[in-house]
Amino acid sequence: MARCDELAACSEETDRITRPYGSAALVAAMEQVARWMELAGMAPRRDAIGNLRGRYGGSDPNAPALLLGSHLDSVRDAGRYDGPLGVLVATATVERLHRARRRLPFPIEIAAFADEEGLRFQTAYLGSKAVAGTFDHALLDRCDASGISLRQAILAFGGDADAIPGAALRPGEAFAYVETHIEQGPHLESVGLPLGVVTAIAGQTRVVLAFRGEAGHAGTVDMTLRRDPLPAAAEFILAGERMARETPGLVATVGQVDVAPGASNVIPGLVTLSLDVRHPDDAVRREAVCALEHDAREIASRRRLGVEWRVVQEQCAVPCDPSLSSSLERAIAAAGLPVERLASGAGHDAVVMSAVVPVAMLFVRCKGGVSHNPAESVQAPDAAAAIDALDRLLDELATERPT
Amino acid sequence: MARCDELAACSEETDRITRPYGSAALVAAMEQVARWMELAGMAPRRDAIGNLRGRYGGSDPNAPALLLGSHLDSVRDAGRYDGPLGVLVATATVERLHRARRRLPFPIEIAAFADEEGLRFQTAYLGSKAVAGTFDHALLDRCDASGISLRQAILAFGGDADAIPGAALRPGEAFAYVETHIEQGPHLESVGLPLGVVTAIAGQTRVVLAFRGEAGHAGTVDMTLRRDPLPAAAEFILAGERMARETPGLVATVGQVDVAPGASNVIPGLVTLSLDVRHPDDAVRREAVCALEHDAREIASRRRLGVEWRVVQEQCAVPCDPSLSSSLERAIAAAGLPVERLASGAGHDAVVMSAVVPVAMLFVRCKGGVSHNPAESVQAPDAAAAIDALDRLLDELATERPT
Repeated sequence: MARCDELAACSEETDRITRPYGSAALVAAMEQVARWMELAGMAPRRDAIGNLRGRYGGSDPNAPALLLGSHLDSVRDAGRYDGPLGVLVATATVERLHRARRRLPFPIEIAAFADEEGLRFQTAYLGSKAVAGTFDHALLDRCDASGISLRQAILAFGGDADAIPGAALRPGEAFAYVETHIEQGPHLESVGLPLGVVTAIAGQTRVVLAFRGEAGHAGTVDMTLRRDPLPAAAEFILAGERMARETPGLVATVGQVDVAPGASNVIPGLVTLSLDVRHPDDAVRREAVCALEHDAREIASRRRLGVEWRVVQEQCAVPCDPSLSSSLERAIAAAGLPVERLASGAGHDAVVMSAVVPVAMLFVRCKGGVSHNPAESVQAPDAAAAIDALDRLLDELATERPT
Repeated sequence: MARCDELAACSEETDRITRPYGSAALVAAMEQVARWMELAGMAPRRDAIGNLRGRYGGSDPNAPALLLGSHLDSVRDAGRYDGPLGVLVATATVERLHRARRRLPFPIEIAAFADEEGLRFQTAYLGSKAVAGTFDHALLDRCDASGISLRQAILAFGGDADAIPGAALRPGEAFAYVETHIEQGPHLESVGLPLGVVTAIAGQTRVVLAFRGEAGHAGTVDMTLRRDPLPAAAEFILAGERMARETPGLVATVGQVDVAPGASNVIPGLVTLSLDVRHPDDAVRREAVCALEHDAREIASRRRLGVEWRVVQEQCAVPCDPSLSSSLERAIAAAGLPVERLASGAGHDAVVMSAVVPVAMLFVRCKGGVSHNPAESVQAPDAAAAIDALDRLLDELATERPT
């Protein structure tokens, strides 16, 4: 917990945490974490994009490694746990091994990713993409708000854009990636448990839809003669809520509503809405989106309105590895805790790593489900439980994978 | 119709109609109307605030006068009938008397008001308030967008602010005010009739209300754990629509919705709405507003949300004079037309005049209910029907009020 507080001081801004990719604040954070890695008996190094990677050797130095990690960059005005907690829980777990002078049959490598939030270049997962070998080199020419390209930023950060392919895992170099992260939602708090095992990172559909009617004078147009798109939007908002409530695991959110022309004494003529639908099972999500589109069209038709429906983003779900997750569940049970499974509605580095290696995720309870906010809060006993669970996962994996 | 077209050319802007109080465009319009008044045998004059007033003497020059009128100013980018139609229908009616060399037992005075829309000084009814004797002299120091005070504008318009009290009707000077105006709504069009008799100008309540919940990540907060104010707002919008549909004559409009923070991937934390409720019967309106406030509080309580309810404006209804309206109905029936009664949801000079004299209003069908827009459209046969009805009203009143 003290280390999380110490990293919180590494910020581009005074009085709040903002630690974008390539910033001096991120360099300072990495230097600090590198010292803690050394205390844990690891040899830290920076890869070509600037990720900090620390290795703790196994009894068989050539065995595929277990990857643990998360990210050290942050959003603007961030909390102190989203990212750093996962890196520091992993480091603390390795430190226990080191103090006990234990070697596992396999090496452990901790990856402290340099960019997950994408604050500076409006991208995401630059760090883990380099490690997974899925980095898109076209991004190198993208510029930040002050006109500095990603290529220049990598260089200034001590990296080398041309060497990024060399940062990628080679086949057989790792057998699993396990990420610890705050939940960023209130589920664990609501069930009263410190830890949860992530079943999948939810897929997501983003839709922009609009109902088009006819604007008019609020005083002079009888109700029966109106073609007001706002009650249609209201029906749709409630249909989305109902659908999500009735479908286990589904979340549906309308976060933006634009009403035009938008005067108190004018009947609206056009209402535009955003819709965000997520579910860990792609088929369930697609069916829900399809049913909601049907609802929108039915509402519009019944109310003599036009309707536009435009899918602006679609991301498939990423299931966590069942076998690796079972090991994590046994570790939690061995620590004397009930096993709670939950989906992640937010994306994580594990999404990227799943392209090349089985992944599992351990969620840690956070206060009120709040994240991306200075009010982000984790309790020390919960962090301790996470270290304990990770410790026992190492035992599980050591038993499963003897040299 | 040709005269409406001609007045449309009197504008402050090229290619669209904008005729604010005191503008050269309004001077030009008044000069033109004054010529038409002279052709109708009337003696036009300008009063202290700049209203154009034309008098057609009766057989008893001392008898109280019948006032006919409407306004000649306009909103920005206006249509050509809102205001002028009423003045020109009245002028045409008097012209018929004049051509027939008829005198009625009472004088007729046409008031072409210089300000009803309030475009320039963000006020309303300056012209009719001067005639009704309810002009608020505190307004004289109010300035337009270029810093010219109303007092200065009156002077430049050929008037005299200090003489405004002299523009007011003296007790017994008039026995009725009858205004012809486009409906500004689609009711007459929907029932297929050219004319309607206004029963009352609706009262209005404007409310700003807000539902306050808890913002959160659209992906990570289970539906059961959300305190999303937007579905509450949606329920309220539908409750308002239902209430208005079930209450004859009631209109309820939500014209503004503000959703904060307003990102597609963030559950809203605060939704603010405008509500506009109108009904010709104040008791019905107040009961509806009260029931809707109850609905808002019930919705908020059921959904564990905060609610704010603030009445920002309340205007009582202005009933038209039943006896005068009956005369107008008989006139319409005598013209061979069905009598259609309807309330006005918009305000008119008749609201102001009702403070000192019985008022009646004749509505003329307009295309699609569109007004305050260049698309404003009236058919020539409907304008002719209005002149015919007003003509027959004069006969009715002459019979009722012999010298």
